[in-house]
Amino acid sequence: MDFQYFIPTKILFGPGKLNELSKVKLPGTKALIVISGGNSMRKYGYLDKVQCLLKENGVQSLVFDKILPNPVLSSVMEGASIAKRECCDFVVGLGGGSSIDAAKSIAVMAINPGNYWDYISGGSGGNKPVSKKALPIVAITTTAGTGTEADPWTVITKEDTNEKIGFGIEDTFPILSIVDPELMTSIPPHLTAYQGFDALFHATEGYIANISTPLSDIFALKSIELISQNLSKAVKNGENITARTNVALANTLSGMVESTSSCTSEHSMEHALSAYHPELPHGAGLIMLCESYYSFFEDKVAEKFIDMAKAMGEDVDSLPEHKRPHSFITALKKLIKNCNVEALKMSDFGIKEDEIPKIAENARNTMGGLFTLDRYTLSLDETIEIIKNAYK
Amino acid sequence: MDFQYFIPTKILFGPGKLNELSKVKLPGTKALIVISGGNSMRKYGYLDKVQCLLKENGVQSLVFDKILPNPVLSSVMEGASIAKRECCDFVVGLGGGSSIDAAKSIAVMAINPGNYWDYISGGSGGNKPVSKKALPIVAITTTAGTGTEADPWTVITKEDTNEKIGFGIEDTFPILSIVDPELMTSIPPHLTAYQGFDALFHATEGYIANISTPLSDIFALKSIELISQNLSKAVKNGENITARTNVALANTLSGMVESTSSCTSEHSMEHALSAYHPELPHGAGLIMLCESYYSFFEDKVAEKFIDMAKAMGEDVDSLPEHKRPHSFITALKKLIKNCNVEALKMSDFGIKEDEIPKIAENARNTMGGLFTLDRYTLSLDETIEIIKNAYK
Repeated sequence: MDFQYFIPTKILFGPGKLNELSKVKLPGTKALIVISGGNSMRKYGYLDKVQCLLKENGVQSLVFDKILPNPVLSSVMEGASIAKRECCDFVVGLGGGSSIDAAKSIAVMAINPGNYWDYISGGSGGNKPVSKKALPIVAITTTAGTGTEADPWTVITKEDTNEKIGFGIEDTFPILSIVDPELMTSIPPHLTAYQGFDALFHATEGYIANISTPLSDIFALKSIELISQNLSKAVKNGENITARTNVALANTLSGMVESTSSCTSEHSMEHALSAYHPELPHGAGLIMLCESYYSFFEDKVAEKFIDMAKAMGEDVDSLPEHKRPHSFITALKKLIKNCNVEALKMSDFGIKEDEIPKIAENARNTMGGLFTLDRYTLSLDETIEIIKNAYK
Repeated sequence: MDFQYFIPTKILFGPGKLNELSKVKLPGTKALIVISGGNSMRKYGYLDKVQCLLKENGVQSLVFDKILPNPVLSSVMEGASIAKRECCDFVVGLGGGSSIDAAKSIAVMAINPGNYWDYISGGSGGNKPVSKKALPIVAITTTAGTGTEADPWTVITKEDTNEKIGFGIEDTFPILSIVDPELMTSIPPHLTAYQGFDALFHATEGYIANISTPLSDIFALKSIELISQNLSKAVKNGENITARTNVALANTLSGMVESTSSCTSEHSMEHALSAYHPELPHGAGLIMLCESYYSFFEDKVAEKFIDMAKAMGEDVDSLPEHKRPHSFITALKKLIKNCNVEALKMSDFGIKEDEIPKIAENARNTMGGLFTLDRYTLSLDETIEIIKNAYK
């Protein structure tokens, strides 16, 4: 037993917590607020509210509103140049994982030289060390999916090469994260499901990863339990604030899993799928992969599968021993059905079966590191097999 | 559900981890190492090793070796004046809770004006806000008891008034803590037990406190489980590194409980006992109080008692419903017996029965805040009754 624990983010959690933005200690006086290119932050009044609360707290702010659902390198560089030009002294990511991830990468490039991809490790990244600290980052989440508010990770896509790669350093932990489930009630059912499953898989992958620790394990099992008990309620009634709060907590916990353990190759495979098909929501990609992926590992990480099945409420003890690990797959399939996402098909997102070898290679090239964290090392053929089995 | 999560300490955990002190990033170049007035840090070579590792890391160090088992105000002021005079830029607490707590308080007074007691809230404390940040603190634990490596708290006794009061601010979180169970193998059995029970009660009090959160709950239950499974093994064979490691992890988790929930009045009562009788080890005081304290609360926090009993491995479900909460007391008594500390008596530490009303009043005056965190508010008479029932 040997691990490092480091999650320096101050997390303010609970319905109504956004209001504390007007009085909490902030790391500067001029913020670049990073939001998506969609209109939801304006439509629901969240942007106005955040700007008012910042003003009350003595902070001037400007808005960069060009982040795509899969945020891209050019937006990072553009946001960073605005932060520099306007002398912003911190960055606020407001929205879902895309906006907050982009805010993290912008915070790095607002004070470091060159191109963001110079610092990326994997694929065509330059693998250079970051020489200067990032600008301080404040994360305000309006979705429950990536856990980015409680981890240092950011995932950016390089458009011209279809590479979607994660990055993180100590300075990309937000210094402050506000998780207010009241901001999540407007998310439509299908996105609630996609995001909730993303959070679930951060927890399950972190639990079966070969670098899991006792701390990541307790975060993961609690996250799995909360999602299993609450996600379908939040999907069916978005206004159910108790369900939203529990899913939000599960998501924050899954971010803590990502800070103390790691995703595994399931995430590499999905990144490759959505790098080639940017219209594919990340969570939907994971949902389509999961049965095939976990079935492959079921007899390889049997004890951990049993724990996860129990956390999902399966009556594992009544089963014969050899059938117990599979009850996690059973629980997953039930949850997928209860969240109304069992009809997802790769072909509906334009993915062709003959692309699969290319996708498998991309997964292994761009995020090969995660393949080394599986408890069984997949070959290229096995990677192709897993994606093929998930194809319909 | 509404909480703040903030544990900014970087924790390096595991057997052999001390060696990383030579290469980990440190917050300065001249350290004041704070150790106890006993000789164990020299005898076991820990002080030498820490000084060598610091030197390898480019850090000059000097030693302040006057900390008492219940650290006192005058030592804090003396240590702070040395840190100031010698221009130390950070403080290393090396040893048990006493040394690390003292290091925290010294770090505060090394750069803040006046007397430490000016900043204490409760009793005769001046309740002034701390105007300047503390010096950065590095904690290196050689015991598993206080959890101080993962929380901001420090407990110091004012000798002339018998006040033993806790204090903590964001800057008294260690920036780095090293928890290396190999440094714990030399602790004698009775101290292993006292310290382990202290850790246990941080977890159990934090679990039943009225400000517990979902995060403090998962830390607490894991800590309770680990202590229940491992403490008696560490007591019986101090060289059992697996047991030591699990107890050390339980202790770190219990520190995280203290950062996310709080102790309750059990701790206030013990602080009063050992303020009047400084020769009484804190953990021994808690062990003597616990059966009476928890029996009083058993029907008031029934569900949480059942959870704790389950974490301690009791077969709760086979009991009739009204007997389930009491199974936590049963488990406690078993653990006390297995750790060979069932013979502890207050009278053996010179405590007289007729002091009890004075002790109860001291508890309520000096650390009255913790009484407001019990789920049932104790009267003075009930406080006296709890201590009287624990007296023998």
